[in-house]
Amino acid sequence: MSCVFCAIAAGQMPANVVYQDEQFLVLLDIFPLRPAHVLIITREHAPFLTDLSAAPRDALLALAARVAKALYGSGLGVAGINLMINDGPVANQHVPHLHLHLLPRRPGDLPALIWRILTRFLPFGRKAIEARLQREADVLRNALQREP
Amino acid sequence: MSCVFCAIAAGQMPANVVYQDEQFLVLLDIFPLRPAHVLIITREHAPFLTDLSAAPRDALLALAARVAKALYGSGLGVAGINLMINDGPVANQHVPHLHLHLLPRRPGDLPALIWRILTRFLPFGRKAIEARLQREADVLRNALQREP
Repeated sequence: MSCVFCAIAAGQMPANVVYQDEQFLVLLDIFPLRPAHVLIITREHAPFLTDLSAAPRDALLALAARVAKALYGSGLGVAGINLMINDGPVANQHVPHLHLHLLPRRPGDLPALIWRILTRFLPFGRKAIEARLQREADVLRNALQREP
Repeated sequence: MSCVFCAIAAGQMPANVVYQDEQFLVLLDIFPLRPAHVLIITREHAPFLTDLSAAPRDALLALAARVAKALYGSGLGVAGINLMINDGPVANQHVPHLHLHLLPRRPGDLPALIWRILTRFLPFGRKAIEARLQREADVLRNALQREP
């Protein structure tokens, strides 16, 4: 299976999954731009938004709102969220399978965000990041159960 | 009326509107980050995604897909699109009324994009930008009519 998100959706690759249903998986980005950087991926493999079937397309923002509510109520200090679909490689889409980023924002975090944009793919501090991802996944799983 | 997007939706403020229906208006950002920078605004005044009613929330991405198709087919050189909802002022939301950005991307445009992020609110070159917005609005109105 050549698509990493299809492999995760099929359970053939590990991921910090915090929620899943028939159409979507919610997981933590393994190269987080900020703490608790969430991705919603569709089970359907569609590179561009215009490729995606109507059913998941029209259900995506309801789930995004639910995840946003969980992030705001998670105790992880989330004060704002950038929700982003990067449509196509020219728009910085690294995996050609539709995914919605939920990038948590906190007051004054712009320098840290810019630093991470420049360094996120460097292989430093992976152990600390992996440990943090597991803690965040636990927190978000609980927060999502409180926000049905 | 204190909300600029409510004023535009009510026809009390001018805007480069390229499409409207019962739930949404599609218009050009007057401080474009890149040429043909489109905003989809809801008629309903909702600051955060979690404030928005289910009907416009669940219809928004269908319209976004239609606008994306029009942008790709517009002849304006669009090769990718960043679709973004900035949820809350901490996430860089300048007007506290939900809007989806469609930011057209072209190969190699990152330096120009960063430059515009730094300078978009400076009062230079407004006449040229206004003229370009009107041309782009005409192009997109036609492109949207071809993509029903």
